Amino acid sequence: MSEEEDPGEIQVEIQDGQREETQGEDDYFRSYSDVSVHELMLRDHPRLIAYRDGIEKNAQLFQGKIVLDVGCGTGIMSMFAARAGARKVYAVEASNIYEKAEALVRENGFSDKIQVIHDVIENVELSEKVDIIISEWMGFYLLHESMLGSVIDARERFLKEDGKMVPSSGKIYICPVAMEQFRKQNVDFWQSYYGLNFSSIGEEIMTARMATPFVEQISSSELLSKPQEFANIDFNRIERSQLVSLTGEFSFGIERDSELAGFAFWFDCDFTLDSPSPIILDTAPSSEPTHWKQTTVFLGVFAQVQKGEQVDVKATMLQDEMNPRHYKISIQT
Amino acid sequence: MSEEEDPGEIQVEIQDGQREETQGEDDYFRSYSDVSVHELMLRDHPRLIAYRDGIEKNAQLFQGKIVLDVGCGTGIMSMFAARAGARKVYAVEASNIYEKAEALVRENGFSDKIQVIHDVIENVELSEKVDIIISEWMGFYLLHESMLGSVIDARERFLKEDGKMVPSSGKIYICPVAMEQFRKQNVDFWQSYYGLNFSSIGEEIMTARMATPFVEQISSSELLSKPQEFANIDFNRIERSQLVSLTGEFSFGIERDSELAGFAFWFDCDFTLDSPSPIILDTAPSSEPTHWKQTTVFLGVFAQVQKGEQVDVKATMLQDEMNPRHYKISIQT
Repeated sequence: MSEEEDPGEIQVEIQDGQREETQGEDDYFRSYSDVSVHELMLRDHPRLIAYRDGIEKNAQLFQGKIVLDVGCGTGIMSMFAARAGARKVYAVEASNIYEKAEALVRENGFSDKIQVIHDVIENVELSEKVDIIISEWMGFYLLHESMLGSVIDARERFLKEDGKMVPSSGKIYICPVAMEQFRKQNVDFWQSYYGLNFSSIGEEIMTARMATPFVEQISSSELLSKPQEFANIDFNRIERSQLVSLTGEFSFGIERDSELAGFAFWFDCDFTLDSPSPIILDTAPSSEPTHWKQTTVFLGVFAQVQKGEQVDVKATMLQDEMNPRHYKISIQT
Repeated sequence: MSEEEDPGEIQVEIQDGQREETQGEDDYFRSYSDVSVHELMLRDHPRLIAYRDGIEKNAQLFQGKIVLDVGCGTGIMSMFAARAGARKVYAVEASNIYEKAEALVRENGFSDKIQVIHDVIENVELSEKVDIIISEWMGFYLLHESMLGSVIDARERFLKEDGKMVPSSGKIYICPVAMEQFRKQNVDFWQSYYGLNFSSIGEEIMTARMATPFVEQISSSELLSKPQEFANIDFNRIERSQLVSLTGEFSFGIERDSELAGFAFWFDCDFTLDSPSPIILDTAPSSEPTHWKQTTVFLGVFAQVQKGEQVDVKATMLQDEMNPRHYKISIQT
């Protein structure tokens, strides 16, 4: 990267996302009351098979056990747990989708095993400790929505000493990206537009898109180096206080001559538990697309980089004080 | 169709659309101020080539002429007209996108020929009559948005006796449809959902989707009969009063055993003018998809129909008194 193009430090925040469009706790839960939001998640096949396999290929762990599902949505994961032999599942859901969960539990014959509780998890009281906590709490770049904090609280209050978390751990990855496809669509396309120069339209669209983290599926051909671990989180041990700020310094070896657009973030989660083969939900560019896609933070300029060059970056995810469900992601090169 | 399944008369209205999300005139124009709305239209290739060819393959009509572009947006059609030899183009735009039109006209060197006017067309005064009116006013099923009324007013006030309208005419089509893909995605998919019965989720999603006209691209394999003309409108002659209510009675010969889901509407527009070969913007299911897609009005039930059966239908498009930019589409079988 040449010095004059160094954009220095940038800080950006996702202003809205597909799974959360408004601020405030009421709005947060309201956004999950709509069936169409759940449709998006229920049609996310890699998400479903990770939970299904993580639960059903570990059926011996679930046999006769007490399970807590934090934010059960339509109740699908609770039903997987019941089907895997759980004796009792507490399915907690704060949004109005709990009504659908109740109906689906009944329609699928699990009313004797699954108890749907309509409340925020923080208000829930249980008469017993649980053996397993399942939860699908992951947001964009893992931490967006900050629902993990509620899952940690539930773990502290309800999980037995030797209890299991499903998923059990997760990693956030960071990688420099070229975003050539993005530029082709937003710059090149407008330069010769039906014989006219519409570049200024393209610039306006691109500037708007680059101002906040860009949540889109990117091709693995956009990666300019090997991804590195930004964070590796053990969901059995992580404390809420550790989620306020995550930071890391990285040195990437650039693998081809290109222009560096920014850094992409994504995550995986581990559902292996006692299964003999790994069960991983992987949202990498090279994996089957999920509704989490990847989150790209742009530098604001496209910096020339050459094969063999080292790019050093300090990346930080800082929980927003005003809206703790959001993070500010900053990139310092 | 068996009698007990006859849904009788249904009336439906599009509640929102991609090109117009809110009611009221201010909101209507505001919805066109955002560049991203124009991006959708500017990336609609069949739309662009119909206007480009309709104008540039009729360059002899434009040579030295005065042109009015009603609702010019980014000014693209005005620039096609200038490039085809127009002496002067009045490019009228009520929304704030006029600023982009001004910039693009300047950047493309047409400032001497194109005058961008920021106003609603009804308030515009011109010192001369025009030879040609171009306008891209079409909404879903042609008439949604009711912008044609403003174009008619402009024609009455500004077009010379022997002036031309571009496009010159349009047809609305109606056809019974099976919507098998829609049912597969919204019914079958949920019936065996990872080994569970999620039918009630599918029913809720489908009921919501069927309550208003469904604007989606459908496959031509969904058509159960030959499409028929619901309306054939000459833009040089149509009067505003004729757009309040359009109605037609049709008898369709069903071409295969299936279930009838409803009726799809779409349109084409004619840009041929003096060109030796036809220039048609066609939004049929069999044509290259456009952002207008097709508009399907559901019966609410799926009625068994057999090959050779006749299905009689009376269809009406009635301008909504409360919100004249919307139509109520009613289907009586």
